[in-house]
Amino acid sequence: MKIEDNAVLPAGFRAAGMHVGLKKSGAPDMALLVSDAPAALAAVFTTNQIKAAPVKWCMARARSRRGRAVVINSGNANCCTGEKGLRDAEQMAAWTAEQLALAKEEVCVCSTGSIGFDLDMPAIGRGIPHLARALSPEGGSAAARGIMTTDNAPKHITTSFKAGGRTVRITGLAKGAGMIEPNMATMLCFLLTDANVPAALLQSALKAAVAESFNRISVDGDQSTNDTVLCFANGAAGGRALTRGSADWKRFETALLAVARTLAWKMIRDGEGADKVIKVEVTGAKTARDAELAARSVANSLLVKTSWHGANPKWGRVMDALGYSPAKIDETRVSIAYDGVPAVRNGVKTRTSLERLKAIHRQETFTLSIDLGLGKGTSYVFGCDCAHKYIDINI
Amino acid sequence: MKIEDNAVLPAGFRAAGMHVGLKKSGAPDMALLVSDAPAALAAVFTTNQIKAAPVKWCMARARSRRGRAVVINSGNANCCTGEKGLRDAEQMAAWTAEQLALAKEEVCVCSTGSIGFDLDMPAIGRGIPHLARALSPEGGSAAARGIMTTDNAPKHITTSFKAGGRTVRITGLAKGAGMIEPNMATMLCFLLTDANVPAALLQSALKAAVAESFNRISVDGDQSTNDTVLCFANGAAGGRALTRGSADWKRFETALLAVARTLAWKMIRDGEGADKVIKVEVTGAKTARDAELAARSVANSLLVKTSWHGANPKWGRVMDALGYSPAKIDETRVSIAYDGVPAVRNGVKTRTSLERLKAIHRQETFTLSIDLGLGKGTSYVFGCDCAHKYIDINI
Repeated sequence: MKIEDNAVLPAGFRAAGMHVGLKKSGAPDMALLVSDAPAALAAVFTTNQIKAAPVKWCMARARSRRGRAVVINSGNANCCTGEKGLRDAEQMAAWTAEQLALAKEEVCVCSTGSIGFDLDMPAIGRGIPHLARALSPEGGSAAARGIMTTDNAPKHITTSFKAGGRTVRITGLAKGAGMIEPNMATMLCFLLTDANVPAALLQSALKAAVAESFNRISVDGDQSTNDTVLCFANGAAGGRALTRGSADWKRFETALLAVARTLAWKMIRDGEGADKVIKVEVTGAKTARDAELAARSVANSLLVKTSWHGANPKWGRVMDALGYSPAKIDETRVSIAYDGVPAVRNGVKTRTSLERLKAIHRQETFTLSIDLGLGKGTSYVFGCDCAHKYIDINI
Repeated sequence: MKIEDNAVLPAGFRAAGMHVGLKKSGAPDMALLVSDAPAALAAVFTTNQIKAAPVKWCMARARSRRGRAVVINSGNANCCTGEKGLRDAEQMAAWTAEQLALAKEEVCVCSTGSIGFDLDMPAIGRGIPHLARALSPEGGSAAARGIMTTDNAPKHITTSFKAGGRTVRITGLAKGAGMIEPNMATMLCFLLTDANVPAALLQSALKAAVAESFNRISVDGDQSTNDTVLCFANGAAGGRALTRGSADWKRFETALLAVARTLAWKMIRDGEGADKVIKVEVTGAKTARDAELAARSVANSLLVKTSWHGANPKWGRVMDALGYSPAKIDETRVSIAYDGVPAVRNGVKTRTSLERLKAIHRQETFTLSIDLGLGKGTSYVFGCDCAHKYIDINI
């Protein structure tokens, strides 16, 4: 399996991205992804109780498990926009469908940007025909740029491998950088593959991949109003349909997870203003759930994040965050290590020098291992530091 | 009822505060508060599963509901210090008791500062006799300085009123400034009164006052490893014992709450690096619990806090924080107002101009009112903005 940092599309997909007039900066603000043939569609959406209009539109589409295209705008979330927002999302689908000679129900819609403002529909209406004309098998990179908001760089990744008797490809495009509080940052991800995957299988593979990638970055299970992951499989590579449990299927699952993980890593690495990525891994929890709660409590602590930023090994703040997490904690059984170097054993500090821990904290990435000493539950989450720039971006 | 911003002690109390050598800066780092006669003792402690050694000592003392003194050090939390930490806390009580001719069980101990370091017991041992000699009815202000950590100013308040046939006084001393994430910041508060209050009554009044003051500031119910509120009532004003339900009792409860609220306000106003205090009030929730969860979710959102800092009326972030809170939310029934000026009605924006909302956001304090439109549950919490200085302080 080759993983490459480009946006080469799988067979039978075309893409485009451009500026249509939504962002004052003139930066690209729309993208379009199209499968030439009907494709199996799998999807995962935000769990936020408040869902943007395009999310509601996509949720209805995803029930059919079939789709052909997704049109995306950045710069405006089309969220908290009432009935008009719903009509606007549907209109975006209808305009796109008209250009592509599809039914509007075959077109997904995603938006990302500020909440509470009506979409500039005239600009979008003018833009969609241009997007449709610009569609090309080489358009992946432009599409990745069209969905960016505060991202410092477009996020794309491709992988190819043998499955169903053919070389197939999975290409992922994603956006999302506000990962210091990911619950508030919209993440969008589009996974395209020319593998031949039955829709039900695709959904189960996507759900599993998201659980171990996007749901493992930063700090909690909360999500923005617009978070959407869509996966289209059009079978255009011409291979046999993959069947659950086969060696080919395992390869597909592995590749999908690898693509999702790489994109998730790119997101956290691009965390708004962040300099570092820290893996917080918890072992010895009473349950796996406890392990996850403990890991998220630590990764989400603003005081822990600021001390990471300062390269200050303040493990006392880690202890405190464990203590107020909902997970069961016994202070006298907690051990903490940084990149394997023990800092705390049974709740009290080891003889490791502060300088040695500081050197690890100065690295761009390190692993914080916490053993709770209570059971067999394990989990992990990737977090990042909190810098001044985060405030500058979100002020 | 007069509320004054000073540290005049009630009758029968003496206090002292000074530098004994714990803080490198030379700032005051210890304090001692003593009642000349045995006093009723009420207490509220952190709910963190990890409790500092002095908290464990105080919890044992509070069970007797009697106490005479509390010795406090700042600059070191004596937390995650194992068996040695417990012995050190007890030793602090024993040394203090020796100086005051008391039993060590009559002496409470509090510590605040960094976690994970052993106390400098030689410095404390040398300091306690000096503190005891410095005890004076005029020592309240010095004591308030001795308990400070990142506080910009000492926090004290006094009130006097008639109860039990005499003029009685309640004096409160407190510390705590890391209120942007209060779960991590230690808050200590000492309430002294010369009113004659039975211990069981005192405990119920203290619990009620804490619930509506310190537990209402900033963002969540989590607390540091060291949070402690102690209330001593020595009856030295000479009045009759207060009885539950009497007019005098109501006055006492009101005064105690007023003192606690004023100190809580001082804490949030002194929030690390914060410029603003925002009251987040929620009405129309399905339950009172839901109202509280919704208010805390908003007040705790880093993106909401940064937009407050930038005086940016980004109510979309408020909607998002509501949506991911555990409270039941129906987007189409949410209304939001700032200082009574409606910004959102039934989930969509009103015609109020951005400029008008911005002007409110530029104020040092304002009220964010959220009506969920689902029931009769109400709650509130005071939050503050998140500034660069927060990171500078905690880096």
